[in-house]
Amino acid sequence: MIIVLKPGTQQEEIQKLTKQLEAKGVSVNPVIGTDLSILGLVGDTSKIDPTQVEANRNVERVMHVAEPFKKANRMFHPEDTVVEVRGRKIGGKELTIIAGPCSVESEEQIIAIAQEVKAKGATLLRGGAFKPRTSPYAFQGLKYDGLELLKKAREATGLPIVTEIMAPQDIEVFERDVDVIQVGARNMQNFTLLSELGRTRKPILLKRGLSATIEEWLMSAEYIMAEGNDQVILCERGIRTFETYTRNTLDLSAIPAIKKLSHLPVIVDPSHATGKWWMVEPLAKGAVAVGADGLIVEVHNDPQNALCDGQQSIKPCVFGELMQDIAPIATAVGREMAL
Amino acid sequence: MIIVLKPGTQQEEIQKLTKQLEAKGVSVNPVIGTDLSILGLVGDTSKIDPTQVEANRNVERVMHVAEPFKKANRMFHPEDTVVEVRGRKIGGKELTIIAGPCSVESEEQIIAIAQEVKAKGATLLRGGAFKPRTSPYAFQGLKYDGLELLKKAREATGLPIVTEIMAPQDIEVFERDVDVIQVGARNMQNFTLLSELGRTRKPILLKRGLSATIEEWLMSAEYIMAEGNDQVILCERGIRTFETYTRNTLDLSAIPAIKKLSHLPVIVDPSHATGKWWMVEPLAKGAVAVGADGLIVEVHNDPQNALCDGQQSIKPCVFGELMQDIAPIATAVGREMAL
Amino acid sequence: MIIVLKPGTQQEEIQKLTKQLEAKGVSVNPVIGTDLSILGLVGDTSKIDPTQVEANRNVERVMHVAEPFKKANRMFHPEDTVVEVRGRKIGGKELTIIAGPCSVESEEQIIAIAQEVKAKGATLLRGGAFKPRTSPYAFQGLKYDGLELLKKAREATGLPIVTEIMAPQDIEVFERDVDVIQVGARNMQNFTLLSELGRTRKPILLKRGLSATIEEWLMSAEYIMAEGNDQVILCERGIRTFETYTRNTLDLSAIPAIKKLSHLPVIVDPSHATGKWWMVEPLAKGAVAVGADGLIVEVHNDPQNALCDGQQSIKPCVFGELMQDIAPIATAVGREMAL
Amino acid sequence: MIIVLKPGTQQEEIQKLTKQLEAKGVSVNPVIGTDLSILGLVGDTSKIDPTQVEANRNVERVMHVAEPFKKANRMFHPEDTVVEVRGRKIGGKELTIIAGPCSVESEEQIIAIAQEVKAKGATLLRGGAFKPRTSPYAFQGLKYDGLELLKKAREATGLPIVTEIMAPQDIEVFERDVDVIQVGARNMQNFTLLSELGRTRKPILLKRGLSATIEEWLMSAEYIMAEGNDQVILCERGIRTFETYTRNTLDLSAIPAIKKLSHLPVIVDPSHATGKWWMVEPLAKGAVAVGADGLIVEVHNDPQNALCDGQQSIKPCVFGELMQDIAPIATAVGREMAL
Repeated sequence: MIIVLKPGTQQEEIQKLTKQLEAKGVSVNPVIGTDLSILGLVGDTSKIDPTQVEANRNVERVMHVAEPFKKANRMFHPEDTVVEVRGRKIGGKELTIIAGPCSVESEEQIIAIAQEVKAKGATLLRGGAFKPRTSPYAFQGLKYDGLELLKKAREATGLPIVTEIMAPQDIEVFERDVDVIQVGARNMQNFTLLSELGRTRKPILLKRGLSATIEEWLMSAEYIMAEGNDQVILCERGIRTFETYTRNTLDLSAIPAIKKLSHLPVIVDPSHATGKWWMVEPLAKGAVAVGADGLIVEVHNDPQNALCDGQQSIKPCVFGELMQDIAPIATAVGREMAL
Repeated sequence: MIIVLKPGTQQEEIQKLTKQLEAKGVSVNPVIGTDLSILGLVGDTSKIDPTQVEANRNVERVMHVAEPFKKANRMFHPEDTVVEVRGRKIGGKELTIIAGPCSVESEEQIIAIAQEVKAKGATLLRGGAFKPRTSPYAFQGLKYDGLELLKKAREATGLPIVTEIMAPQDIEVFERDVDVIQVGARNMQNFTLLSELGRTRKPILLKRGLSATIEEWLMSAEYIMAEGNDQVILCERGIRTFETYTRNTLDLSAIPAIKKLSHLPVIVDPSHATGKWWMVEPLAKGAVAVGADGLIVEVHNDPQNALCDGQQSIKPCVFGELMQDIAPIATAVGREMAL
Repeated sequence: MIIVLKPGTQQEEIQKLTKQLEAKGVSVNPVIGTDLSILGLVGDTSKIDPTQVEANRNVERVMHVAEPFKKANRMFHPEDTVVEVRGRKIGGKELTIIAGPCSVESEEQIIAIAQEVKAKGATLLRGGAFKPRTSPYAFQGLKYDGLELLKKAREATGLPIVTEIMAPQDIEVFERDVDVIQVGARNMQNFTLLSELGRTRKPILLKRGLSATIEEWLMSAEYIMAEGNDQVILCERGIRTFETYTRNTLDLSAIPAIKKLSHLPVIVDPSHATGKWWMVEPLAKGAVAVGADGLIVEVHNDPQNALCDGQQSIKPCVFGELMQDIAPIATAVGREMAL
Repeated sequence: MIIVLKPGTQQEEIQKLTKQLEAKGVSVNPVIGTDLSILGLVGDTSKIDPTQVEANRNVERVMHVAEPFKKANRMFHPEDTVVEVRGRKIGGKELTIIAGPCSVESEEQIIAIAQEVKAKGATLLRGGAFKPRTSPYAFQGLKYDGLELLKKAREATGLPIVTEIMAPQDIEVFERDVDVIQVGARNMQNFTLLSELGRTRKPILLKRGLSATIEEWLMSAEYIMAEGNDQVILCERGIRTFETYTRNTLDLSAIPAIKKLSHLPVIVDPSHATGKWWMVEPLAKGAVAVGADGLIVEVHNDPQNALCDGQQSIKPCVFGELMQDIAPIATAVGREMAL
């Protein structure tokens, strides 16, 4: 940690601050010049809250040099984390392909889609039961009934199921019924939810918040891991920018960044990132090429009548072509496809 | 609602879509030219989900002309909403001044600050008991003990108390103990929490999300109001932009925008918006001048040793000067101060 | 300047880098710990290009502690700069009010508006002759003829004239004919233009770029000042964010930031910031309250038929009311109005 | 074009506006309901300036349905534009690879790098002679001497040269000496420069502005094309967002967007987008996979001593590996490499 002092800070004030910091067990190394007065802190700085130091009126800025996340940090866990879900490995050599509809609508729908995407190369099934919608008047999902239908689709196909949780009170049911629990972008900093999910032992798919920095995203993973659950899968799904042509701006640079900073697997959601079905294919290819561990793609058998997000859903036949188009790129970057 | 069709859409397809729409009870008016094919929908469009229409592959775009929020909309509720809290009116002529520390730290601290801010012009007391922190390792607040201390401060001063809730499971306690329940920026789209707060009859202080548009913010108010609770106070606290000198960018244009679009009161938080204590004064003045109904300001008796956000907290004496400096501006825009 | 080294950098590499840096005349102070290896540079670091140091593969990051701007920096020029234009002082006690149409359209138009705004309190006249338009097919201004009309309006009213320059080849004419030369947001980093304007002795009104940080904006001022022209007036006009309700997001926190970092005067353009005429009044008030040195406001006698930006222009009568509404706020913050 | 009227607009006012619009040669189709009043304009709307219509106080909003760019629009020019430069085709089947140093530093440097990148697969040589730098005190390039050295490198290798222009006064020299004239991100809306380049017949490499929407970027291409020069190559180089880990956020969704909206070739600059040399490789792969027509990559033989941007430059050997790694991805998406 580096503390930059204001120009002209009195020697006496520097000593007072130094003593306070040393009391927390670190060694304080001053570098004092006419235009630069800094304190370099060496040792275990984890007990020092930078915002508290910044409250000191002689302090210009506090810069942390080490990343604030520990358990999610590759530095302390150099090998890649591989999350196992009913025999499938997320974060290993095999590309993870999660596919399915925006929301579960009926037994026929979810089973039909599950069978089609499985046949074409999906390794997990997605489907929303609880839907976070901007409007209270929009379709909110089939809720618990949706979970039951997902279970039937799992039974019919063997595909593990991924679905989104919206509140802590549902954790018990999700822990029992769901294979991978998804935390949506809007809940990425719902810290109570994160902590409580950290006390389960289920894999968590943590989507990046709409305006979350990479560091904040990893801090949210840390919230889950701090409670003992290290089965976290990250998911880039686009960030909010000034561009309005696409719903969000897919940040593919986040993939190599995460790979450098963390050992956690990271997948990409091209459907939500762009909000346009015809953009899914090129961006899915791009995601595999930059090194993502997998994709999560919205597939619907009848997008025009989908109860939500039909404009970004592709049909099963298009999904099939996508899988074939992706295969040589996967090979080029050293990955394998399930089929 | 306006539906823009793709150029070259077949007559037959237009008719099919028209029938589907008419079946939902609206009248469909086509405007068809060589370079423009639109359908203008007249009537009650509330049963039509625009994202579903967009899923139609002949549809280029859907534009809603009426705002999607109803209960929060000034069009259907022209007069200003005034929220009453223990005799104080928020959204009326009196400027609401909410002041207090980032977090409740001890009985002495919170009572001392409450007394000082009351004496200098505050009309409500703020203080965090449950603190949403980016890091799981940072101080998370005194939680239920913090609520107890806030109640003591209320008893000592008569100031109504405002504090943040983080999860639905705490609603019962908050409903009983707290005067205004705050929903933080990171929970602005925690829809489960919003709906459940909508079933209470407590005033809700709804902060704008870090990357929320004004429309999304009002839709979140709508979530609360849709359940029957119309006691919503909005709070602008800065949005996330590329600028790094300030923690966030305070969007003061949002104040006149909200005043035009909605009847709900709206206040400004200059402390979180800037993250710098010396910016609180000019931006508080600016907020009053643009027409905000009030301010929420962090005040701490010992910022340098505050357990959180000391760098953005002002001392009680500075708060006192701020109240005096604001008074003539409040007068200039037709407002009154409590003192 | 602080250089953060990568963890595990060899002693030998540190020494090599240290020597390179010392060769440039600075003293290098190492702070080396297990998790922190930094070099604190004391002395004249102006000869060290931080991006070059960052190219060293052992360097994690370079942080500059001192701001990179010199002549624009308040640290080296503590007293406020006051720019004089034909007897009016910009940056002093008097609030500067620049008003006029988006573009000069005819002699009658510009003289009529000039007379009206002068009568109601404007101290300078604005009017576009060369118009930067997003589309090559939109009205581009009357160009040199527009300049002639502005001169006539100046003659008729005595108001100094402010107008935008778009290319270096026009500097000679502008230097001769114009009182304040405006550099538009889109040219804020047109460095050739800035340098050449730096070689004139005319006041320059430098608008903030749409996505410029405060530091970059001051660096653009520095480009002008580095060539010897210290007559720079800054103008905040909104930045680009995800919010679409307003054309841009007016960043009023930039005003106190500039006042702290620099000695240059700074004014606010509420018309371009919001793109909505009815928002000009509240935001103009807000701008004065936060401490801006003045305003630049679009006024048109017939906004509905204006050749550009009519939707953000106010009529002279509304401008007159605005001047009256602003007066008590100006007084409250220690400013004077011309009328 | 669609004009949305304010609710409650008088019949008389609608008729007045209709007449004004019809006078410009369009047919006006009203759709009037209780909550919706729109005018659909059919015919040649090119003479109607939407901002002027918006200035009408009865108008809520104007929406253009057709894109505002014509010559850059794929609708009017369905086949891909292929730009030929000394026998190389940009926008065809062959992947364009532009490589070279941030700035030309010496004859030895530029010739050595040119030979190395050519041997490893580059098809054009880049190198900055005029450098737009944020600071007036930073190295500004060798300017005209730099151009001479580029010519020598072209002579030595046969590689066509690409370099950035900063002001209209240099067009004559660039037209004579340079093969592809680059317009940098900061000059994307330097409309005078664009128009004057439109009067040359040289290929123009137009970088996307830091906060430019895709539509604005294409409008800037239109500025060049409106003057008769249709040899425009677009270059995505990252946009400015709140994320600070990377210098900019590379927007790879812009590639399929451009391919749909326009017929112009589009390439990607992973070096400037990320500002980190180790990110060039994954993002270059991603760019090829999403369908870019080529890459522009910074390559330096001694990044640690480069006069600018060394931290984002890769060494020739890394560039060689990159070319080999990209080859199978290029094949997968139907492209060919030069080598």
